[in-house]
Amino acid sequence: MPKFIKKISKKAGLAPGTLVHIGEHKHEKVKITLIDYDATQLKETELKEIEESFYLKDKASVTWINIDGIHQVDVIEKMGSNFGIHSLVLEDILNTDQRPKAQDFDDYIYIVLKMLYNDKEELKVKSEQISLILGKNFLITFQEIEGDVFSSVRDRIHRGKGRIRKMGCDYLTYALIDAIVDNYFIMLETFGEKIESLEEELLENPTPQTLQTIHNIKREMIFLRKQVWPIREIINGLLKWDSQLINESTDIYFKDVYDHTIQIIDTIESFRDVLSSMVDMYLSTISNKMNEVMKVLTIIATIFIPVTFIAGVYGMNFKYMPELDWKWGYYGVWFIIASVIISMICYFKRKSWL
Amino acid sequence: MPKFIKKISKKAGLAPGTLVHIGEHKHEKVKITLIDYDATQLKETELKEIEESFYLKDKASVTWINIDGIHQVDVIEKMGSNFGIHSLVLEDILNTDQRPKAQDFDDYIYIVLKMLYNDKEELKVKSEQISLILGKNFLITFQEIEGDVFSSVRDRIHRGKGRIRKMGCDYLTYALIDAIVDNYFIMLETFGEKIESLEEELLENPTPQTLQTIHNIKREMIFLRKQVWPIREIINGLLKWDSQLINESTDIYFKDVYDHTIQIIDTIESFRDVLSSMVDMYLSTISNKMNEVMKVLTIIATIFIPVTFIAGVYGMNFKYMPELDWKWGYYGVWFIIASVIISMICYFKRKSWL
Amino acid sequence: MPKFIKKISKKAGLAPGTLVHIGEHKHEKVKITLIDYDATQLKETELKEIEESFYLKDKASVTWINIDGIHQVDVIEKMGSNFGIHSLVLEDILNTDQRPKAQDFDDYIYIVLKMLYNDKEELKVKSEQISLILGKNFLITFQEIEGDVFSSVRDRIHRGKGRIRKMGCDYLTYALIDAIVDNYFIMLETFGEKIESLEEELLENPTPQTLQTIHNIKREMIFLRKQVWPIREIINGLLKWDSQLINESTDIYFKDVYDHTIQIIDTIESFRDVLSSMVDMYLSTISNKMNEVMKVLTIIATIFIPVTFIAGVYGMNFKYMPELDWKWGYYGVWFIIASVIISMICYFKRKSWL
Amino acid sequence: MPKFIKKISKKAGLAPGTLVHIGEHKHEKVKITLIDYDATQLKETELKEIEESFYLKDKASVTWINIDGIHQVDVIEKMGSNFGIHSLVLEDILNTDQRPKAQDFDDYIYIVLKMLYNDKEELKVKSEQISLILGKNFLITFQEIEGDVFSSVRDRIHRGKGRIRKMGCDYLTYALIDAIVDNYFIMLETFGEKIESLEEELLENPTPQTLQTIHNIKREMIFLRKQVWPIREIINGLLKWDSQLINESTDIYFKDVYDHTIQIIDTIESFRDVLSSMVDMYLSTISNKMNEVMKVLTIIATIFIPVTFIAGVYGMNFKYMPELDWKWGYYGVWFIIASVIISMICYFKRKSWL
Amino acid sequence: MPKFIKKISKKAGLAPGTLVHIGEHKHEKVKITLIDYDATQLKETELKEIEESFYLKDKASVTWINIDGIHQVDVIEKMGSNFGIHSLVLEDILNTDQRPKAQDFDDYIYIVLKMLYNDKEELKVKSEQISLILGKNFLITFQEIEGDVFSSVRDRIHRGKGRIRKMGCDYLTYALIDAIVDNYFIMLETFGEKIESLEEELLENPTPQTLQTIHNIKREMIFLRKQVWPIREIINGLLKWDSQLINESTDIYFKDVYDHTIQIIDTIESFRDVLSSMVDMYLSTISNKMNEVMKVLTIIATIFIPVTFIAGVYGMNFKYMPELDWKWGYYGVWFIIASVIISMICYFKRKSWL
Repeated sequence: MPKFIKKISKKAGLAPGTLVHIGEHKHEKVKITLIDYDATQLKETELKEIEESFYLKDKASVTWINIDGIHQVDVIEKMGSNFGIHSLVLEDILNTDQRPKAQDFDDYIYIVLKMLYNDKEELKVKSEQISLILGKNFLITFQEIEGDVFSSVRDRIHRGKGRIRKMGCDYLTYALIDAIVDNYFIMLETFGEKIESLEEELLENPTPQTLQTIHNIKREMIFLRKQVWPIREIINGLLKWDSQLINESTDIYFKDVYDHTIQIIDTIESFRDVLSSMVDMYLSTISNKMNEVMKVLTIIATIFIPVTFIAGVYGMNFKYMPELDWKWGYYGVWFIIASVIISMICYFKRKSWL
Repeated sequence: MPKFIKKISKKAGLAPGTLVHIGEHKHEKVKITLIDYDATQLKETELKEIEESFYLKDKASVTWINIDGIHQVDVIEKMGSNFGIHSLVLEDILNTDQRPKAQDFDDYIYIVLKMLYNDKEELKVKSEQISLILGKNFLITFQEIEGDVFSSVRDRIHRGKGRIRKMGCDYLTYALIDAIVDNYFIMLETFGEKIESLEEELLENPTPQTLQTIHNIKREMIFLRKQVWPIREIINGLLKWDSQLINESTDIYFKDVYDHTIQIIDTIESFRDVLSSMVDMYLSTISNKMNEVMKVLTIIATIFIPVTFIAGVYGMNFKYMPELDWKWGYYGVWFIIASVIISMICYFKRKSWL
Repeated sequence: MPKFIKKISKKAGLAPGTLVHIGEHKHEKVKITLIDYDATQLKETELKEIEESFYLKDKASVTWINIDGIHQVDVIEKMGSNFGIHSLVLEDILNTDQRPKAQDFDDYIYIVLKMLYNDKEELKVKSEQISLILGKNFLITFQEIEGDVFSSVRDRIHRGKGRIRKMGCDYLTYALIDAIVDNYFIMLETFGEKIESLEEELLENPTPQTLQTIHNIKREMIFLRKQVWPIREIINGLLKWDSQLINESTDIYFKDVYDHTIQIIDTIESFRDVLSSMVDMYLSTISNKMNEVMKVLTIIATIFIPVTFIAGVYGMNFKYMPELDWKWGYYGVWFIIASVIISMICYFKRKSWL
Repeated sequence: MPKFIKKISKKAGLAPGTLVHIGEHKHEKVKITLIDYDATQLKETELKEIEESFYLKDKASVTWINIDGIHQVDVIEKMGSNFGIHSLVLEDILNTDQRPKAQDFDDYIYIVLKMLYNDKEELKVKSEQISLILGKNFLITFQEIEGDVFSSVRDRIHRGKGRIRKMGCDYLTYALIDAIVDNYFIMLETFGEKIESLEEELLENPTPQTLQTIHNIKREMIFLRKQVWPIREIINGLLKWDSQLINESTDIYFKDVYDHTIQIIDTIESFRDVLSSMVDMYLSTISNKMNEVMKVLTIIATIFIPVTFIAGVYGMNFKYMPELDWKWGYYGVWFIIASVIISMICYFKRKSWL
Repeated sequence: MPKFIKKISKKAGLAPGTLVHIGEHKHEKVKITLIDYDATQLKETELKEIEESFYLKDKASVTWINIDGIHQVDVIEKMGSNFGIHSLVLEDILNTDQRPKAQDFDDYIYIVLKMLYNDKEELKVKSEQISLILGKNFLITFQEIEGDVFSSVRDRIHRGKGRIRKMGCDYLTYALIDAIVDNYFIMLETFGEKIESLEEELLENPTPQTLQTIHNIKREMIFLRKQVWPIREIINGLLKWDSQLINESTDIYFKDVYDHTIQIIDTIESFRDVLSSMVDMYLSTISNKMNEVMKVLTIIATIFIPVTFIAGVYGMNFKYMPELDWKWGYYGVWFIIASVIISMICYFKRKSWL
């Protein structure tokens, strides 16, 4: 639940553009990493102060500044004033409860996305907000905590393999978004496997826990869908705005990410359909079991209640009960009892309850 | 329920533009507050008569007239004729059962919204209608009762901090709408917390009361959605109309409110999904309990009904019943009874009902 | 049900434009009322023959001809040929099973709507079709039976109060549509009150009748929605066509009706949501009651079936049953019985079934 | 089911445009009827060979060639080559599993529709495909079997009444489509009556058969909707294409059919809503009955199980049971039994189970 | 489940355009077939190396290169570099988990589709990805495994019958897509037949297996819909792009496929509606059976529990029980028992439980 809405009440009432960090409170220093490259050279350093990166703003090479940790408001502020970022954007970067979106400010494009992690044990999707500011020669990324899904992108930059070193900031932006979206696939796979194993569980031995798990996955799918759906609009925006910051030759790559997003949404929808159908299966299985229980009760009760009555009759103490004195009376009663039982069983067989 | 439709029948049949106050009847005098400011000066007074504010109509400073209470029709009427407001607008201001909307009248823009309050105890959303009339140099707001969510805006005006004193009426309008929308977040948080606690209740000890509460929250969500949804259209309208009353530099702020609105709608939808899934969980929990009850009944009945029959047989009073005279007859019956009970228990174990 | 489709088979196979009255058969003479007014004068007469109104066709004053009863086909025919109305329109006027719609014929606009009445006892919505033909200087209205919701409009014309006498036929059209739509609100109120009282009934003492009533109201809501939904299109059409017959200054009034229509649809949707949720509540209440019944059965059966067995054992007539001769045997059995009962009760308490 | 998909596998793999008759196999000769008319003359003949009609292709009068039976591929082929029809169209005419659609080929317009028949006994909708080819001076119609819904159109042509003789092929096309759509109304009426009678059955004596019938009607509604929905697109197309083949003065007639189609769809939707609500009613009625059964069981069992136990106690054969020797012991037991029964009944009354 | 998402995690993190085969691992050599034809000549060969086909790239005749097997990455690579295919397209060809789509690259059009096979026994839809690259004079198709649905197309090419030999690559593309879509119909037929037989099963003897099968078909329909839906967009794209590669005269053929696709989607929707309604039928049948079981239990229990009590009373051993000494006491008890049984049966008859 806390995933769906965070405590943002501490912000309500402040002036727009007031920088307040909304999210978990942290104390470590933010980590600033700088990668500066073009086709021929590559420099990677960890910065002590954000100011060390300012001289690169207008350099033609691709500058990627990655900031892990957004709880140090002054770092964001200095960054903002140097790179000319609107205060509402800075506010959005600090508020980790953003809906994924993209905004075009002519000089730069602001994109906010969610990196999703999947705790395999718990089947809980954990999300981390990542903000990207794409400028002419720079890309600034803000993450909530250290650790991301970009190692493959860094690798490709280091090895100089593929297109990445030959292309600009827009391609880097694409590469990062692609890495994030690719990671969604991995998450869906984990869920897909879990759903598969749940299906077997459902056929073999469904428990209330099974249903609980189905509901949990369903909720994670709701959450996931909420995160993935807006990415379509983001990429549509990037392609449509005709911004100078995005080269036409990069368009095809963004279209590729777009296709992936559609595929993820399709898969989420399929999962939701499958999960709904699993809930139905669960309920009908349970109801089948219940019916079986009721049948056993009915069979036992309908067989023995009448014959108990017969035994009760001949347990009465009336003085004048002729049958009691008959020689074969007792055996006759057993015969009647047996007839009742057998005819009952035949009746059940005919009704196919046995 | 009364939330969904108010008694407006007393108005049906009157000429359009006839001013009749639709809402709770009240007797206190309306309270009129005037705040007039620009970057350099600030004046705040409580007015006795609405006429005292008329000289400010064309003054270049920002004039914010706030009227608490709309039951004094003459106040509204004088205001309307001085500021040149269309009689249909005045009628709408008085009718507190409006759907949120915005209308552009060239000289002024009319916006109607709902302030929502959340009674924590009852989980009932209470709504108060607020009408805004944005003119060139003035903003008039009408509230049903005293008390609002604008204290932070007033604060910012007083302290002269942030942009608010440097900007015009359009920014003030934005600030008020933003305050209203921010308040929705606080309400959603309350509901979010309640939903979280309901979820625990659902897992531990669900009662019919739990279901009732889920249904109540669901209904509040329906109500909330109905109030929030039109705000998208309102802001879309403000941005699209290209009105002279709204400065282009304010657009980005309205877009920010728009994003918040989308986020609120998203959250409401998520809540509704979660609540639906909670109802399903509740029903399956109840059905599980029922199954358990039925199982106990079945086990007890299927074990004891047959053995009671056996005891009944040897309670019969036939003269000729050889078993009764056997020495170990009684113990033999106990042995049969025990066999039946044990085999029944084994059967249940195999069916995993025990 | 008959509300949803009327006997129109008697018309199938006739040439289009053939005038056949579809609806209940009636014999009384149609009643024709004429109101002719402008800002300075007013004339109201009941006409014997429709021909008496023809001279007014091109007179500049506003001429409102109201015809109660559409079963006299010749009246409609004469009217049609004099005022130049297309035969398909005349056919539509006679067919009381029309969907609300508006059509622009340059010289006149044809609008068909439903007046709805609410029989408080039965909670049944009754509908009457009203057709409006708006020409340059005339408005002709056709009603199925006498009695309508326009008394307030007539009143305003008589008293010369408000705008109505100063404005043209388009405003009169608006006033009539507004009166019809206002009446929908009154109907919704009645339903709202009924829903409220049903909610209390649901909490206190739900019966199958309660469910039946909920279903009935649900169906009326389906019917209502079907009638109200097209009004949006009608007004959109009127505003969009840019017809010469509708003055620009009247547009704002039609927009007002449009807003009301949206509000009615919103309310209907809310009612439907609430009613659905009430059905769920009903079903879960019933299922709770059922569970309670089952629990009582289980408790009684599981307590007494075992102890009855014990009593049965000592009712056996074996010759050699040592317990029967024990001095405290009888009391011992009572002790065993009491132990069983008490331990059962403890078990139920632990399961919280008691 | 076979209604939803026909055996078209025998066609898969053939070249497009290959003429193969898809539908029931038949042997009779196709029947070709020719009606040629204008305002002054009328000629109706049954043709032996299709070639006899070819000379009329360019004659100014309206030529309506109706072909009953599409199993003679050569007739279709000759027709096609003479009137210049595209081979894909001929293929579509032969394939009786088409979705209703219209296609504009400049020289002619191809329309395919379904005539629906309603077998009153079975409540099964039977469909027959009708293809129309509207040329400049001719209209060719293809039906699967003899017998159609056009007798009223033929009548009007014969009697020369109404507009039909004065107007062109487009009006004839309209008249035929109108006849088909009018027939849908008659079908809906039959269903409406059945639904009404089902409703009464539901209130009085619902059986599983009732539910089966509701489901059957629901399915017919699904089928009907599938046939009617595309007609909107067809007529929209006819109006939008601005084809020379359709006179502007005919537009208003097509709009009329359009309105009828909307009304039919509306009615189908209402029926579906009503049927869904009837299923809910059925289920809750059944569940009410079940509850009543359970209550009777509970009442009988909870009253008699305890008192049977009491009787069982005094049926024990212990030597020392003081009560057995009391003079009023027997009556005392009856008193206890009566007390138990009465208190049980009171309990049930309080729970309102009786 | 594995159908919905494949293992693509092994690709995550690679540079876009890196060629990695995603799908089942295979070892056989890929099979390359070349068909080159125009109206006068035809050549069909199986190639050893892909290079043998390169000289045909710019030849005016229609060249169709079909590649069965995509696990040999080098074949795809050489092909790509010779025919100038974008690396992202090559990547998509290798990734067999694509959503159907079409992309226009000016020089060529890339289309990806799914061929679906239907395992009749298992009712499982198996899918094979097919990629088409349509160039000026060539069409390259990539299939996962040997065996396809194109035998009829090859036949038509061989026999030179129909249009195919006279037309270009675009018509060949159409013919292949048409063959794929035609095959969907055959699959739907199989499902249709299965649904029909399930319906009978449902009426006669529904088992949990029936429900399982319904759910399985439902899921296959979800899968199918996911595959068919995008084909509409593909063909819309082909028609809309106005590409030089697609002749205007071929448009009508693509429109024909479009119509088929709509029809398939319609049929899938109908099947889903029917299947949902079958689930409802199943559940209500099961619940009917359950009710019958409960009724039998209730009847037996309510008849025999009271009379067993009566027998129990006269089995008591009180010394003073006057009835026991009455001469007709025993017969009187039988009379009472019979009365109880008969009145119970009458009660059940009146309740129509018998």
